Amino acid sequence: MKTFLDCVPCFLRQTLAASRMATDNLETQEKILREVLTMAAGLSFSRTPVHMGRDIHRVIKKFSGNADPYWAAKQHFNDEVLKLYPELKQKVKASDHPFATAVRLAIAGNIIDLGIKMTKDDINLQETIADTLAQPFAINRLAELENAIKTARSIMYLGDNAGEIVFDRILIEELPRDKIIFAVKSLPIINDATLEDAREVGLTEIVKVIENGSDAPGTILEDCTEEFQKLFAQADLVIAKGQGNYETLNDVKRANVFFLLKAKCPVLARDLGCEIGSIIATCNNANDLKAGKTRVGNVKR
Amino acid sequence: MKTFLDCVPCFLRQTLAASRMATDNLETQEKILREVLTMAAGLSFSRTPVHMGRDIHRVIKKFSGNADPYWAAKQHFNDEVLKLYPELKQKVKASDHPFATAVRLAIAGNIIDLGIKMTKDDINLQETIADTLAQPFAINRLAELENAIKTARSIMYLGDNAGEIVFDRILIEELPRDKIIFAVKSLPIINDATLEDAREVGLTEIVKVIENGSDAPGTILEDCTEEFQKLFAQADLVIAKGQGNYETLNDVKRANVFFLLKAKCPVLARDLGCEIGSIIATCNNANDLKAGKTRVGNVKR
Repeated sequence: MKTFLDCVPCFLRQTLAASRMATDNLETQEKILREVLTMAAGLSFSRTPVHMGRDIHRVIKKFSGNADPYWAAKQHFNDEVLKLYPELKQKVKASDHPFATAVRLAIAGNIIDLGIKMTKDDINLQETIADTLAQPFAINRLAELENAIKTARSIMYLGDNAGEIVFDRILIEELPRDKIIFAVKSLPIINDATLEDAREVGLTEIVKVIENGSDAPGTILEDCTEEFQKLFAQADLVIAKGQGNYETLNDVKRANVFFLLKAKCPVLARDLGCEIGSIIATCNNANDLKAGKTRVGNVKR
Repeated sequence: MKTFLDCVPCFLRQTLAASRMATDNLETQEKILREVLTMAAGLSFSRTPVHMGRDIHRVIKKFSGNADPYWAAKQHFNDEVLKLYPELKQKVKASDHPFATAVRLAIAGNIIDLGIKMTKDDINLQETIADTLAQPFAINRLAELENAIKTARSIMYLGDNAGEIVFDRILIEELPRDKIIFAVKSLPIINDATLEDAREVGLTEIVKVIENGSDAPGTILEDCTEEFQKLFAQADLVIAKGQGNYETLNDVKRANVFFLLKAKCPVLARDLGCEIGSIIATCNNANDLKAGKTRVGNVKR
């Protein structure tokens, strides 16, 4: 997905929120803001918003000297969702369709996105879980995803945020685990999950976890390690979580990339043709083009 | 009031909204955005937000070739509020305290601010009128204002927006009109009232109206004509409407500048120590300093 004019004020809003997470020094916050404004003046709108997000957070980390401003927030959400784990497992177990329920929970977990929400207090987990279990999908390609899982010999699961990966663990426990490689970011970026988080929530004990080599809040393939790129290319099926992965991989030239996410910003909601707050299970453009289909789920493209 | 870091994302949001008002050409919108980003990177935070607002809208007008992007919106609100005029007059007439009711209505009219609200559809006049008549003042220095009006030999009334000036007319009709000079902007800036609007709503028939010489969405004294500056200095009392006038005149070095406004943005609400949506009748810092008072209304300074 390209960057839209509407992304620009939001980049600045994010810059300010993240600068304040990174440092209390007002002068440093101002320096960061000026640097991002200069970068934004020369911004390439043909790149994805994730490219700019990566560059903004590099500036914040460099200027503030804080390599991991969201460390405490990540801890908080890993802990909070681990506490919910038994209750969430119970919901899946008691469900008529455990796979669909586990997918819904994995999407509910996608609310834990501090790139969009300003602080952890803006996130109401229990409310989001209840809503996400009840609301209709705005785009529902779950049946295709379920089929693709059945026939896939290898599945790459691209994680998104800390805390959210506990929800992902619950979904993965409903899938053929031995076929799955779970990917996390190599360096801290916003509250995205790293290997440390995957260890903390026990993901590394149930599935193979790799780092992708990148510090972008999505999957910019050219930023990733050769090993990651190879595994990504070879996987029969990719399950990608969250807006950042959708923004960076929707136009990727391979089939069978499925996206599970909550639409949290107006630009992405418009791109998907849905309302903010919608829950989405869709797949990438090339998948449909390859199958000779016109897009079925996304109203506006 | 100085510019805060939080003003920056808002400047960009306003830039985009105003660019879209000014032109449908996406390339022009992008050019405007890049120019404003470059300006913002070098922004002086010691100036008021109104200075940047003025500069942003100069860029928009220049790049789009549209000298008055809000012309239709101004017409719309002049017409809409003129329709309400009899009903509003009736409210004042039926009131136990016509002056206070007229002040409340003048503050209600301050909601018509397209620098903050994105489009005219974001403004609900009837709801705002009802709320403003009922809600307590967050800062209430109405008694002092009423006294100052009684003793003043000359009053300068600084208008704010088109449509809003119909509400101002209702307040002015409760005041000693012959002592009042009403000031409007000389050039179109956002939806601020110009001489054309003052004529349209009949203000010119009941009071002396002058142009201030400026194209800023507030009162930057050094931008104003010598005549305006002289009248401003000589007036015994200044009644200034809206956020822009508060931002530019709160630190002015003369006594008896009163502000009537609705707090519509988080930065200004924090400066005033009130909640967003509050109604405010306050006066400038120098007024209190001269009287040897500590500030009485504003919690945080």
